[in-house]
Amino acid sequence: MEYEEPKFFHVMEYAAAADGDVIDMVSGNPDWEPPTALREALREYADLPPDAFQYPPSAGLKELREAIAERRNVDVDRVVITNGTGEANYLAMARAFERDAGNEALLMDPVYPYYPGKVQLLGGEPTLVPTTRDGGLDVSAVREAASEETALIALNTPNNPTGAIYDRDAIREVVAIAEAVDALVLVDEVYDHFDLTESFESALTLDSDRVIVTSGFSKSMAITGFRVGYALLPDEHVFKAKARHMLVNVAGPRPSQYAVHHALAETSPEYYTEVRELLTERVDAFTSALDAAGAEYSRPEGGFYVLARFEDFPGSMANVKRLIDEAGVAGMPGDAFGTARGDWIRFALVTPRAVEAAERLADYFGDGTPQSQ
Amino acid sequence: MEYEEPKFFHVMEYAAAADGDVIDMVSGNPDWEPPTALREALREYADLPPDAFQYPPSAGLKELREAIAERRNVDVDRVVITNGTGEANYLAMARAFERDAGNEALLMDPVYPYYPGKVQLLGGEPTLVPTTRDGGLDVSAVREAASEETALIALNTPNNPTGAIYDRDAIREVVAIAEAVDALVLVDEVYDHFDLTESFESALTLDSDRVIVTSGFSKSMAITGFRVGYALLPDEHVFKAKARHMLVNVAGPRPSQYAVHHALAETSPEYYTEVRELLTERVDAFTSALDAAGAEYSRPEGGFYVLARFEDFPGSMANVKRLIDEAGVAGMPGDAFGTARGDWIRFALVTPRAVEAAERLADYFGDGTPQSQ
Repeated sequence: MEYEEPKFFHVMEYAAAADGDVIDMVSGNPDWEPPTALREALREYADLPPDAFQYPPSAGLKELREAIAERRNVDVDRVVITNGTGEANYLAMARAFERDAGNEALLMDPVYPYYPGKVQLLGGEPTLVPTTRDGGLDVSAVREAASEETALIALNTPNNPTGAIYDRDAIREVVAIAEAVDALVLVDEVYDHFDLTESFESALTLDSDRVIVTSGFSKSMAITGFRVGYALLPDEHVFKAKARHMLVNVAGPRPSQYAVHHALAETSPEYYTEVRELLTERVDAFTSALDAAGAEYSRPEGGFYVLARFEDFPGSMANVKRLIDEAGVAGMPGDAFGTARGDWIRFALVTPRAVEAAERLADYFGDGTPQSQ
Repeated sequence: MEYEEPKFFHVMEYAAAADGDVIDMVSGNPDWEPPTALREALREYADLPPDAFQYPPSAGLKELREAIAERRNVDVDRVVITNGTGEANYLAMARAFERDAGNEALLMDPVYPYYPGKVQLLGGEPTLVPTTRDGGLDVSAVREAASEETALIALNTPNNPTGAIYDRDAIREVVAIAEAVDALVLVDEVYDHFDLTESFESALTLDSDRVIVTSGFSKSMAITGFRVGYALLPDEHVFKAKARHMLVNVAGPRPSQYAVHHALAETSPEYYTEVRELLTERVDAFTSALDAAGAEYSRPEGGFYVLARFEDFPGSMANVKRLIDEAGVAGMPGDAFGTARGDWIRFALVTPRAVEAAERLADYFGDGTPQSQ
């Protein structure tokens, strides 16, 4: 079995080792404050008696599962708390391939780089399916690609890297395709709180026994290092997902789950609104500077990434390194995200220096187009 | 793919739902204090800036990996921090089966219940190998069982459930057998700090490229819910173990790793000595009461479990439930640990009421042997 190491780490290491001052827009690590209640809960946890430091239930702290079930309007038995959304996606994909219903996964192109690796780890074969020009779901392309070999269709909305929010009716059509070929649909909604255009609707509302929805608190609470995610599974898949979770990880981290539970209960909607406002400001400023740089870009409907294309400067690893060395801005090569955006570079708006970065890009590309590599 | 849910949860749920007062000796959750420095580090962590709340390196916080490498006297590149020892064992087993070197795992009988489940999850086939009467390694039984189909030999020392500490020379012979049949040897040393007889030697000292050693801080720091374990891999297996770790979990929990790193640096050997003394006292008291109950038992060389056998009272699930209802003591059925100790019941000495539990057993079995079921 072969699987690739994602390229994130390679770019981040290169940026960290660079000589000059580099603005890091590579990783998806939020730079804003987590909810105040999260910090308070962590302090409180530190003083609890020893029994609070032991294994939580394997599927997660009961009160956290209940809070998630209530918010997402599903039965609590369907909630499995995982070690981040990454594990939730792994469990969901495993369910798809364990059913003897084929071993092909349809992944939307551009694709989040971990997806193909996870599919291959589980013995599946990824097939990339084109999306529309603005990154939206291309239902007819999915229909064309689907066959009896298809076990899984994986969607990510709001999307990383395109910022597209998938239309609910389009997802419904994809679910119908999945039914026809006996596939499961994974919908990774980890960016659901970053709905910048108020257009997001969860796939849960489709109420389909083909759909596994995953999400987590890494992004919404600015705590990617805490490792608290979850899968919401149709009843028939819960037991096996729990069993795999138990056999791989035993349980997730209790201090993190405790802190997230309190933050979930005590954080007002304003917290999330303020973060969305901050991001919207950054998107405005960054895309204005991209205009000045003469770049093409897609304004994100959700999430916190901007894909940009500079003339005669394809988003290869070589060019990304050049941008680090010569412009002092680090992004992710578009060819890390499949085949559809090889000319593009992804910038994560998770730095207070996003505007400065955009100015650097405007200076760099505005002073005459650099030589293509 | 089929895999069993361990029976722990079933017994714990039954005990929790029981009418009377039940002393819980089922789980392996320590009841003593974690290191003081661990609580302090957690408080400190709660006040760190947002960037300290984001993804740690996938293989774990650098300073924690370095501290482990120094203590275990291995190169830091060989250390992969995992989501508890459970994940470390999963990664190690995956390495064994990914090599196209057979799909059989030799597991020692009695067996830690998660091992067969993990093997099956990874597409392997568990074979139980007898141990000696006192739970020690039976090298000739391993030799007899090993074949070209053998990909993995898994050892756990100090052993759960027998309390046996495996002889280093016996492990060396097992490693030689593994070499002969192209298998890897997993040595799970998570109970290494509970060496009650000062006879434990790590398999790392064998310096073999066939041996993957796993351990963690769940037991040694009394924090099973924190999920910080590690695998120490031979060079050639590091990359693929890291890749699988990244694709399954992305990374482990940073608050936990931060706290463990500080506790590791600041906790004196006295902490561990005191816990060993506490356990030795509990072993003395518990086994004295077992004498009074007319039970057979093995005094643990390490770890914190005692296996006991009562006359005409085999360690079935039915009898364990009866003991919960009629004696107010909850243990684990011996038949949960493979085939070798079906007549026995495992008691975890992780309650201040261990002595009281032993008295209850003495009363119950001393008043005339209960009817066999």
